[in-house]
Amino acid sequence: MAHDSARIDSRGGHKGTLESGRNLLADVSLPAAIIKQSPLAHNLVWMQHFAEHHQAHLAPHGKTTMTPELFRRQLEAGAWGITLATLPQCRAAFAEGVERLLLANQLVGRANMAIAADLIRAGAELYVTVDSVENATQLGEFFSAAGLELLTLVEIGVDGGRTGCRSDEDTLTLARKIAKQPGLVLAGLEGYEGVVHGDDPIAGIRAYAQRMVANAEALASEGLIGVEQPIITASGSAWYDLIAEEFRDAGLQGHFAPVLRPGCYVVHDHGIYREAQQGVLSRRPDLHEGLRPALEVYAQVQSLPEPGMAIVALGKRDIGYDLPPEALARYREGGSSDGVLGVDGWKVVKQMDQHTFIELPTGEHDIQVGDIVAFGASHPCMTFDKWRQIHLVDDQLQVVESWETRF
Amino acid sequence: MAHDSARIDSRGGHKGTLESGRNLLADVSLPAAIIKQSPLAHNLVWMQHFAEHHQAHLAPHGKTTMTPELFRRQLEAGAWGITLATLPQCRAAFAEGVERLLLANQLVGRANMAIAADLIRAGAELYVTVDSVENATQLGEFFSAAGLELLTLVEIGVDGGRTGCRSDEDTLTLARKIAKQPGLVLAGLEGYEGVVHGDDPIAGIRAYAQRMVANAEALASEGLIGVEQPIITASGSAWYDLIAEEFRDAGLQGHFAPVLRPGCYVVHDHGIYREAQQGVLSRRPDLHEGLRPALEVYAQVQSLPEPGMAIVALGKRDIGYDLPPEALARYREGGSSDGVLGVDGWKVVKQMDQHTFIELPTGEHDIQVGDIVAFGASHPCMTFDKWRQIHLVDDQLQVVESWETRF
Repeated sequence: MAHDSARIDSRGGHKGTLESGRNLLADVSLPAAIIKQSPLAHNLVWMQHFAEHHQAHLAPHGKTTMTPELFRRQLEAGAWGITLATLPQCRAAFAEGVERLLLANQLVGRANMAIAADLIRAGAELYVTVDSVENATQLGEFFSAAGLELLTLVEIGVDGGRTGCRSDEDTLTLARKIAKQPGLVLAGLEGYEGVVHGDDPIAGIRAYAQRMVANAEALASEGLIGVEQPIITASGSAWYDLIAEEFRDAGLQGHFAPVLRPGCYVVHDHGIYREAQQGVLSRRPDLHEGLRPALEVYAQVQSLPEPGMAIVALGKRDIGYDLPPEALARYREGGSSDGVLGVDGWKVVKQMDQHTFIELPTGEHDIQVGDIVAFGASHPCMTFDKWRQIHLVDDQLQVVESWETRF
Repeated sequence: MAHDSARIDSRGGHKGTLESGRNLLADVSLPAAIIKQSPLAHNLVWMQHFAEHHQAHLAPHGKTTMTPELFRRQLEAGAWGITLATLPQCRAAFAEGVERLLLANQLVGRANMAIAADLIRAGAELYVTVDSVENATQLGEFFSAAGLELLTLVEIGVDGGRTGCRSDEDTLTLARKIAKQPGLVLAGLEGYEGVVHGDDPIAGIRAYAQRMVANAEALASEGLIGVEQPIITASGSAWYDLIAEEFRDAGLQGHFAPVLRPGCYVVHDHGIYREAQQGVLSRRPDLHEGLRPALEVYAQVQSLPEPGMAIVALGKRDIGYDLPPEALARYREGGSSDGVLGVDGWKVVKQMDQHTFIELPTGEHDIQVGDIVAFGASHPCMTFDKWRQIHLVDDQLQVVESWETRF
């Protein structure tokens, strides 16, 4: 037969497919990444409520998912804006309707500055962080030449941490530079408590937040802030409760708006953030039930080549592997979501690009080639970026919608 | 200003941009993944020549790059077909003009079987591997009901390895099953020597290849082969010389066509495959110069927050991290590719999603925020899958073409 590629839709599903209304246990090419509708809805409300309860804005970190349909739901739930890590991410979010963009990162390179300028001209409210006079000079020259003003946040860092000014003196020097630099406007302060180290992380993070507050007050009292409503922003997905409490208790609401930036909360996880959430709940019993894991990857047993070993068609190409994924449930292909089969004692012992090796418990005899296994992973950022499409499914594993990612 | 997302091209470059004719040191949003034109051209010819010299076909593993422009160049250089790991990958390759597809993996699940059926109906010559009677039964029922015949290769595995029949008896039983199963045709044997373990891997791999040959002869002598030109196929990117020699020396060319399937060779790497290539060259001094690394990721210094520390805007989202990436060269933004600055003693000590931490040698004073650093990584599969677009660049780092990936 002649080659007839016109009959084949190359974009139809490099992974998964575009159509909805199908069931994960029967009609979807696996492996496939899915988000469960109920826990997603719970998480969207939970974190928005948390932020509001602490008199803070929420700007969820969008780099986690890079899924415009999730950005839309986060904004509809009340988010103030979306946080991003690169200019191409900002561009993708803006093109999908996100107007307030917080780049929680330095803006470096003329090509990236050009993207930022295009976004500002198109109406984006874009904030970027700065941690050096050198970068401030580069930005000032570019944006003043472009006839634009860039909203900048001085980044507060810690010794041995990542980016950010190490000392209050550096912070003040940089803020003064920005305040008098044409093309730049000082719009507040940014930090990331996830890089605070030490024997007592809780005390360290509280001290870091207090240092951010003290710096904010110092910059404001010297008249360096160039906007009506400056912001003070920090928090990843592990310690947001401490940041929220410190910013709230500092009584900044009148002159600096606190902005929280967790990203992973929206689908939570089955690893490091599940553990971090136990920490939040132990510190804050008033929060009652916390976040619920919503992101899973479904894949099929492809081989049972030896007793005690199953090979699943799921690889490092398909799921985050900072920690080994965890088998959550198993189904017979074509069966119902009620027909859950056991995965007790299943252990992921190795992963390759396209394969997962499972060590099975002694005496496991009920497995078939083709069985569908749901996996949970640690660190959702590293699962999302493996997929161009994610399926939203209901409790019966029916595909409700299929969403494009924009990595 | 009103939101004007129509002015922003969301697909214009989630990473990188679509336009060519620009220079990596001045006009391209970084980080960006690039392929250098000269080593790519060298590698394409080198491996094709290697295969032909060993009287074998070449079916490069396409899962490595999933880049149709590379598939095209591999086929133009003389490749027999393209190897792939999943049905969505096969569909993407076929849609881009690849007619002969070797799925070096089990075909599991009715949704994936439906993709395979669509491909066969559209004219694809698709081979899949089978390693269990259970899977053969599932496939036979599906394809006979569809009125199609599926070309299957029995997979030969090893104890403690991955997929594949563990014993000659299992192989024969499975081949007999396939031979009499409507909907299936036995078209040869498949193996993967990368999972052979033992104290002497070279002897182990040679023995494995010989076992594959013996099995091929046993299946042929029993009349189980259902095609005119059956194949025998193995080899990843580390031990292809041993497989090629064994298949050549077995004198199979008359009745089984040997097919080699290395994937990483096309861009080579700066890690495990560079090391593996040293092994090939030490075993085969007649090959003279081997493969050349062609894949790099360029990124910019975003912060110099402490003496001895540089933070580069390059993360686990951008480059493979099986091993820490290696800084290869540094350039000043806007400079020429001749103006190479030092990276001697630079050491990647940590990576996060969007950041790389560099430990700098004592006394390094020449670095600026915005400096552009070229990185090489180990295991190209895990760098390609992070990008939707890869730039082909010439020796002056001018972008010649920008290629879409199809993950």
